[in-house]
Amino acid sequence: MLPAILDLASVAQAYAKGLSPLDLVEEVIARRNASTDPAIFITAVPDEELRAAAKDLMDRAPEANSLPLWGVPFAVKDNIDVAAVPTTAGCPAYAYTPDKDATLIARLKAAGAIVIGKTNLDQFATGLNGTRSPYGAPRCVFDSAYVSGGSSSGSAIATASGLVSFALGTDTAGSGRVPAAFNNLVGIKPTPGLVPNVGVVPACRSVDVVTVFAATVGDGVAVRRVMDGYDAADPFSRAAVPAYLPQSGLRIGVLAESEREFFGNKAYEALYDAAIERAKTLGATIVPFDYAPFRQAAELLYNGPWVAERLAAVKDFIATNADDFDPTVRTIIEGAKAYDAVDAFEGRYRLEALRQKTLVEWAKVDVLMLPTSPTIYTVEDMLADPIVKNGHFGRYTNFANLFGYAAIAIPAGFDEATGLSGGVTLFGPEFSDDALSPFADAMHRALGAGMGKDRAVVIPEASKVAVRDDGLVSIVVVGAHLSGMPLNHELSAHGGVLQKVCRTAGDYRLFALPNTTPPKPGLIREPGFVGAGLEVEVWKVTPAVFGRFVQNIPAPLGIGKITLDDGSQVSGFLCESHAVVGAQDITALGGWRSFIASLKK
Amino acid sequence: MLPAILDLASVAQAYAKGLSPLDLVEEVIARRNASTDPAIFITAVPDEELRAAAKDLMDRAPEANSLPLWGVPFAVKDNIDVAAVPTTAGCPAYAYTPDKDATLIARLKAAGAIVIGKTNLDQFATGLNGTRSPYGAPRCVFDSAYVSGGSSSGSAIATASGLVSFALGTDTAGSGRVPAAFNNLVGIKPTPGLVPNVGVVPACRSVDVVTVFAATVGDGVAVRRVMDGYDAADPFSRAAVPAYLPQSGLRIGVLAESEREFFGNKAYEALYDAAIERAKTLGATIVPFDYAPFRQAAELLYNGPWVAERLAAVKDFIATNADDFDPTVRTIIEGAKAYDAVDAFEGRYRLEALRQKTLVEWAKVDVLMLPTSPTIYTVEDMLADPIVKNGHFGRYTNFANLFGYAAIAIPAGFDEATGLSGGVTLFGPEFSDDALSPFADAMHRALGAGMGKDRAVVIPEASKVAVRDDGLVSIVVVGAHLSGMPLNHELSAHGGVLQKVCRTAGDYRLFALPNTTPPKPGLIREPGFVGAGLEVEVWKVTPAVFGRFVQNIPAPLGIGKITLDDGSQVSGFLCESHAVVGAQDITALGGWRSFIASLKK
Repeated sequence: MLPAILDLASVAQAYAKGLSPLDLVEEVIARRNASTDPAIFITAVPDEELRAAAKDLMDRAPEANSLPLWGVPFAVKDNIDVAAVPTTAGCPAYAYTPDKDATLIARLKAAGAIVIGKTNLDQFATGLNGTRSPYGAPRCVFDSAYVSGGSSSGSAIATASGLVSFALGTDTAGSGRVPAAFNNLVGIKPTPGLVPNVGVVPACRSVDVVTVFAATVGDGVAVRRVMDGYDAADPFSRAAVPAYLPQSGLRIGVLAESEREFFGNKAYEALYDAAIERAKTLGATIVPFDYAPFRQAAELLYNGPWVAERLAAVKDFIATNADDFDPTVRTIIEGAKAYDAVDAFEGRYRLEALRQKTLVEWAKVDVLMLPTSPTIYTVEDMLADPIVKNGHFGRYTNFANLFGYAAIAIPAGFDEATGLSGGVTLFGPEFSDDALSPFADAMHRALGAGMGKDRAVVIPEASKVAVRDDGLVSIVVVGAHLSGMPLNHELSAHGGVLQKVCRTAGDYRLFALPNTTPPKPGLIREPGFVGAGLEVEVWKVTPAVFGRFVQNIPAPLGIGKITLDDGSQVSGFLCESHAVVGAQDITALGGWRSFIASLKK
Repeated sequence: MLPAILDLASVAQAYAKGLSPLDLVEEVIARRNASTDPAIFITAVPDEELRAAAKDLMDRAPEANSLPLWGVPFAVKDNIDVAAVPTTAGCPAYAYTPDKDATLIARLKAAGAIVIGKTNLDQFATGLNGTRSPYGAPRCVFDSAYVSGGSSSGSAIATASGLVSFALGTDTAGSGRVPAAFNNLVGIKPTPGLVPNVGVVPACRSVDVVTVFAATVGDGVAVRRVMDGYDAADPFSRAAVPAYLPQSGLRIGVLAESEREFFGNKAYEALYDAAIERAKTLGATIVPFDYAPFRQAAELLYNGPWVAERLAAVKDFIATNADDFDPTVRTIIEGAKAYDAVDAFEGRYRLEALRQKTLVEWAKVDVLMLPTSPTIYTVEDMLADPIVKNGHFGRYTNFANLFGYAAIAIPAGFDEATGLSGGVTLFGPEFSDDALSPFADAMHRALGAGMGKDRAVVIPEASKVAVRDDGLVSIVVVGAHLSGMPLNHELSAHGGVLQKVCRTAGDYRLFALPNTTPPKPGLIREPGFVGAGLEVEVWKVTPAVFGRFVQNIPAPLGIGKITLDDGSQVSGFLCESHAVVGAQDITALGGWRSFIASLKK
């Protein structure tokens, strides 16, 4: 009844057909027992506790799918607190058992999700490769000779293996994105501050972000929406001010030739090029940009004072337990002792100077699309040169949290010679998390192959990113603002999006207003009149754009409510009735476009 | 022809009456020669150069007042670069002569202003009192036994003495505000990032702000508007996103009883209480708030890692020239060596945690009003205990730049026993610089006594803060949105401001719409109809509030353009004509308010 990959749509469908959370938990137990990778979990929630959690949910919310994540199994990176389960951060000597759930865990549980276990990670989330843990190195689901990616290694493998529907990572440098690329998953990396970090072991507190590994963009966004929301107990938590992106004609920044670096991995380079081509077919405009200031910022994260945040996070522990650290992790964290407070502030000056340079690039583009990781290595190769090769993975990730961006990593297909997957990541301005997701979803469907380890499965239609109230205003345009007409730029140039072409209700008349430049019609409702409705377009804009738009409308036109042919009432153009006295009634032509066409004959 | 205080309105008026910039420069030279305080300037621009600058202006822009600051004399704190004039930062051994003007100086010169000299300061802008300079301690204009305030000491005294029309300070802890309070001046402290710091010797680069000392709020705002604007060469420069404040019913946060501290200065406490009373008479709502989180942030600036920014600014120089420092300044700056990078990041965590606490307070208020300085000391007392007594001056200032606020310090009147002036400061959210200014101006006029050293002069009416396009949308309301009517909250609760009560043009009719809840009228224009116009109100809101407001208007109402009795066309309520068929024509009553009143009889 359950497919190999437990995407949310499939799970919900199974529940709708009569599967119970207890049935699902039994299936998860069976899969967990059958798993061939011994390094995924640090603490697996015992079978009996899983059964109890399922029963508890069925008592609390008996109706199937009655909560947003009803009976959805998930895994938690072991640097996030789950009450009464040890948190190790990948270091046995550091372990403690928290009394309370992290804020985001409490929200997920309240939404019906069931914790399956705590997953392996690069110790203290320091790494992008998955080999820096005394609990072993999880392996890429496509080839066990290769690294899983990290630091959220176990979470990615649990999701890609079908042990859970989604899993949580954390992402400072790129830990929520690199493992997604290597295991054919979506990685949702929220804007820093959107999901509260209360109950998360810090790596670099000022830039840490909790992430979601999921089978689809829709799944990841649905989970993130459950987790997000201001929590004053996190110093870096912020109330989101949603950013909008144009939903058509997106300008996508891609690597200029001089900044292309794949460390010899031609297959990954080909996947990136294919993604660029696919973006064009989806209507995007491709704009090569200068990655240099982003790269220079990326280099600050490990080769600059930010590493002192890692020391700040564990300073008491490392003072007494230095020998309990993974040697590579210890080397990195102890490197922080070389930095003084002057260095810390000078690092910030450097970052802000680079931010100014990025603004020149952002003026050209709406989003960035970069390779998630430029290459992948075997576990053996990684262990032979752990700091340099780890650095390669971060080439296109490390800047994102320093600059406060939202990012979504999506699968980009496979290197057919090796059978390994690669990925691309879309980056948008802060709080563009929702705005980014429709295009990321479309790209995933256009580029990807299956979900996780199952290359053959089709991405379910039902997993599309759920539309939520986006705060935009719909506006019915009738005349000079229609697509291709002289005033359409007042909408299109300010991020307006064409939602649909439709007709008004039947009791409207349309008049050609005399002495208007450019020529404009007047729409008048006449209750009792029986016509065929007029052709109109519905556009969406932000409230501020709408406000300025309305302010600029000259008399005798104005904005009221138009009743459409489906009975809905939408803001749109009306006309003062005195202005149509003696004007030509063009209702019979069916719309302004037909009238204009008739003039040209 | 020129008054004792060279406020902009008086200077412009003198120029309009025939005074030339050369005449003015001669007057400035004479006043400078007659000045009794030898510590104001570090470098005075020589007389001949001043005459040349005046002639150059008259060649470049012959028409009087043809530039925003045509022929306006100003002084520059000696940590801001003026081309070809030495910059000392108050330390002779540090001096260098820049080739280029600071960005903001170039803007002021282009606007017609004339540099009179470089002014004394607490060395490296480290201090709030004005005694930490090898060039001597400028003295309070009201009593030479007292400190001038600092670090922008010479700039405040130059302005308050009538040697210049305005002068520039810099403000990290409160250096642009404290000297304003002690010398009966306005201190404009912009939002950090609004005025670029290119060409300014840093104190703490992440929080330094260039400020204006002026005779009136209008003068200071006019100067700031010339200086502000994004400059990519400053890492911390930002494009402003103006913040709005309600222009009526402002909620003003004042010190709760537990946070009142005036170090025994009852006269300053009385000035603060009088300011609170005066704010009430100007229509403000007074809200005591908890200053504790702001105070705790303030303490971080000197007693925390931010002092490392001061070391970063001079680290090469102090390594070779430690003995050239003022001993107190050296002690403070060398204290930074105790902080490592972990301390720097932990300081940031602490600041962000405190910011979360301030949000609870901001939810209750629109602006804060605090004493600028709680007390003042003699030079002798200050030198006897320089760090502790300096700290007293910063009690209500040091948090402002750490949190990124805009602030305007205004005179609050005099301690009649000593003849010393005190001040209060208004604080608003980032980029509320313009929004704060009308209330600050009104308070200054209500509270102040004269300008600078001249306690008798009247603040010129003409110096009012110039209105500039504020980006707000005007909206004509006719019925249920009028003041006191059931839907008025849709405007008032979202920062809407009543602009005026007026009438429409004569050719409108008003109808009482049947079956509306709450009852609503419909306004219809009928060209040719001769009536008396209908009573309406004009409100102002932000574009986004306007956009949401329009979106929520139900049929048959809408927003078009209303012609008012002065012939202007303003966005406002219209009604579809079909809805008034059979409705009661209430035009003769003159407006909706009269109609509602008639129902109650």
